[in-house]
Amino acid sequence: MSNAIFYHAGCPVCVSAESRILDVIDHNKVNLEIVHFGKGQANRIPEAEAHGVKSVPALVIDGEVLHINFGASMEDVKNG
Amino acid sequence: MSNAIFYHAGCPVCVSAESRILDVIDHNKVNLEIVHFGKGQANRIPEAEAHGVKSVPALVIDGEVLHINFGASMEDVKNG
Repeated sequence: MSNAIFYHAGCPVCVSAESRILDVIDHNKVNLEIVHFGKGQANRIPEAEAHGVKSVPALVIDGEVLHINFGASMEDVKNG
Repeated sequence: MSNAIFYHAGCPVCVSAESRILDVIDHNKVNLEIVHFGKGQANRIPEAEAHGVKSVPALVIDGEVLHINFGASMEDVKNG
């Protein structure tokens, strides 16, 4: 199994990308966790940055970051 | 079934993203085509641009573009 974390901040670009990713990912091969910084999960911001997340939405798969389109920078997220 | 096209140009960022996408996508739900502009498929550039692809690697799922990280702009791709 791969472990994947989808980080987002509720922006329209994030929501659209989340929907696509949920549609196409193989849930039998991938443990997918969704982290929404805007919904009580701002404490996960340092972890995302440690993975190398620069903007959201981002999908981290086994530690490798895929930035998907551009919704907001992590600076914007932190300044919320 | 969803139809997805992964456009790339052979750049390291493209190759890495391709590998991740192939790993996690559900091939039972998604018809995935790989288009490599550098390998005789430069004729697909106008089609990619028509989908809204601005940079590679990009994954177009049922017409919606997900730009994944940044390897090269389409201008760079066209200028070879």
